[in-house]
Amino acid sequence: MKKYSIGIDIGGTNTDIGLVRNDGRIVGRKHLSTQNYEQADVFVGDMTDSIRALVCESGISDIDGIGIGAPNADYYGGCIGANTVNLRIKEEIPLQRMMQEALKVPVAVSNDANAAACGEHIYGAAREMKHFIVFTLGTGIGSGIFIDGKPLLGAGGNAGELGHCILIPEGRLCHCGRRGCIEAYASADGICQTYMELREEAARTGLLNDVLPDALTCKMIGDAANKGDALALRTFEKTGFWLGLAMANAATFSAPEAIFLTGGPARAGEVLFQPLRLSFEQHLLLIYKGKIRICTSQLADNDAAILGAAAVARLDGHP
Amino acid sequence: MKKYSIGIDIGGTNTDIGLVRNDGRIVGRKHLSTQNYEQADVFVGDMTDSIRALVCESGISDIDGIGIGAPNADYYGGCIGANTVNLRIKEEIPLQRMMQEALKVPVAVSNDANAAACGEHIYGAAREMKHFIVFTLGTGIGSGIFIDGKPLLGAGGNAGELGHCILIPEGRLCHCGRRGCIEAYASADGICQTYMELREEAARTGLLNDVLPDALTCKMIGDAANKGDALALRTFEKTGFWLGLAMANAATFSAPEAIFLTGGPARAGEVLFQPLRLSFEQHLLLIYKGKIRICTSQLADNDAAILGAAAVARLDGHP
Repeated sequence: MKKYSIGIDIGGTNTDIGLVRNDGRIVGRKHLSTQNYEQADVFVGDMTDSIRALVCESGISDIDGIGIGAPNADYYGGCIGANTVNLRIKEEIPLQRMMQEALKVPVAVSNDANAAACGEHIYGAAREMKHFIVFTLGTGIGSGIFIDGKPLLGAGGNAGELGHCILIPEGRLCHCGRRGCIEAYASADGICQTYMELREEAARTGLLNDVLPDALTCKMIGDAANKGDALALRTFEKTGFWLGLAMANAATFSAPEAIFLTGGPARAGEVLFQPLRLSFEQHLLLIYKGKIRICTSQLADNDAAILGAAAVARLDGHP
Repeated sequence: MKKYSIGIDIGGTNTDIGLVRNDGRIVGRKHLSTQNYEQADVFVGDMTDSIRALVCESGISDIDGIGIGAPNADYYGGCIGANTVNLRIKEEIPLQRMMQEALKVPVAVSNDANAAACGEHIYGAAREMKHFIVFTLGTGIGSGIFIDGKPLLGAGGNAGELGHCILIPEGRLCHCGRRGCIEAYASADGICQTYMELREEAARTGLLNDVLPDALTCKMIGDAANKGDALALRTFEKTGFWLGLAMANAATFSAPEAIFLTGGPARAGEVLFQPLRLSFEQHLLLIYKGKIRICTSQLADNDAAILGAAAVARLDGHP
C-alpha cells in the first residue's frame, strides 16, 4: 500500500503545500501567498484547509504525517520564532501544536536547510549515505548536516549554520552583522558583490556593464559566465575558490561521503563547479583526498523544497 | 561490584598502561618505552605481558575491555596505520586483533583526541553532555567531537580533524603541508613561532630574549606570560584570538554545549583563556551567544590519557 505525507515549504513570499507519496512523487499541490498573512491563526487555518482539500481531492484515506520547512524554525519547540525576517506575522507561530490539534497527525518542523538535507536523504541522491552535508545557496547560505544517518541538530536544535563559519577573518560584512562569513562571499548577494568589485577594478568591460548595482542578479552573472564573459567567469572562479575552501573545512569536522550544493547560484553549473572542485581538492586534508564527492541535488527544482519538507515528517525521531 | 578496564596511551616516547576502576580511579600502572620497539609483535607481546601482570598484582578476577589511544589509529580497522610519524615500528599494527587473540577481551582503538573526548564523557566534566568538542593542544592540534552522546567518526572513521580547519587562507605553513590551519597558529609549535615573530618585530625586548629559537618551548612562553612579560602576553593574546575564532567556527557545525581545551599550552591558564573567551564571544553567531561554555578538563594531567583510552573501551558500540 502506498503511504502519503504532506510537505509544506514556507517562504517569505510563497507557501507551497504538496501531497507526497512515499516514492517521492508529488501527487497534489496547493499554494498560499505567505505575504497575505499577518496573524498566525489565520495562516495556520488556511494551511489546514488546504491540506484537507488536498487529501479529499486525491481520494486517499489518510496521511502519515506533516513535515514543514520554514525559516527560523525551532525543531524542538515545533515553532517559527517571533520576529522572523521576511514574514509579516511577527508573533511566534507554534505550528506543530496548532496543526496537530487541527489535523490529528504528527507534525515536525525544521529549518529550510535541514529540510533540504532530509529531502536528499529520503528522496534524493543521499539515500544510501550516513554522513553528508548540504549547502543551500540563496540570498544567504544554509546548511544541513547528516551524521550516522540522522540530521544533526546539536544541543539547542540549531546546529549546522556553516554559512556563518568565518572564512576570511575581518573580511566582508555579512547579513548576520559579523565579518568574513562564507555567506558574505558565496551567497547570491555575495556573488553580486564580487562581480561589482571586479567590474570596478576592470573599468566596466564586461557584458553586464550597464546593469545598475540594484538590478544585478546572481542569475544574470551565471548567464553571462556561461556566454563566456570574462568578468562573470572570474566572479565564479573566486566564488568556487571560497566555497571549495569552506567545504574542505567542513570536511575536517564530519568526514562526510559527499557534500551537496543546491539553490539558485548552483544552477550556474560548471562555471562554478569546476573552480570549486579544484579549490576543494587543493584545500582538503590529505587523509580525505579522493574520498569526498561534491554533488548537486537529484531532486527537480520545483519539487525539492516540498520533498525536503515531507521528508522531515518521515525521519525516525526527528526532524 | 566494581568493574575494571585497561587504558593504554601509546605515544611516540612512552606507552602508559593503567588498570581503571569504573569510577575513574587508576588502581595500577605499567610503563613501556615505545622507542625501544621496532617490531609490532614484540611491542604487543610486552603490552599483553604488562596487562597480565597488572591484573594479577591487583588481585581482581577479570577486566571488561581494553581501550587504546594512539596516533594514526583507525577505529574501524582496529589498528595503527603503517609509517606513523614518531613511531619506530613502520609496519601496520593490528592492535585490536592481536590483543583480542592474546587476552580474550574486547579491544577498541581510537586516536588520541577522540580518546580524550571519551575520557571527558565517561570520567570528566562532560559526563552529562551529549554535544561537546575537545581540542587537544600539543605539538599539533587534535580534536574529538561528541554528537548525541557518541563520538563522531564520520564515513571513514577519521572525522574531527579541526586542527586542520583552515583559519587564515594562504597563511602559515602547517605540519600537514597545507597553509593556514589553526594548528599552525595555536599548537605549541605555532605559539613558539608567534613569539619568535613578535620578538623580531620588538627588537628582542622580552624575558626570553636570549633563548635560541630551537631551545624555546611553549611552556617557557607560558611561564614568562604569567610573570607579566609583555611579548609573551601578546603571544597568548594572539593565540587566544585565533583559537576563539576557530572555536566559534566549530560551534556553527554542531552547536555544542561546551568546548574543552586540553594539553600543554592550555596550562598557561588565564593568559590564554581570557583573550580566547573574548574572541570566542566576539566571533560567535548571535543564536549561540551565551550558550556554549569554554572549559578545561577536570581530569588530572597524569591520568587524562589513560582514562581517555580506558573510556574508549567503555562506550557503547564505539569508539
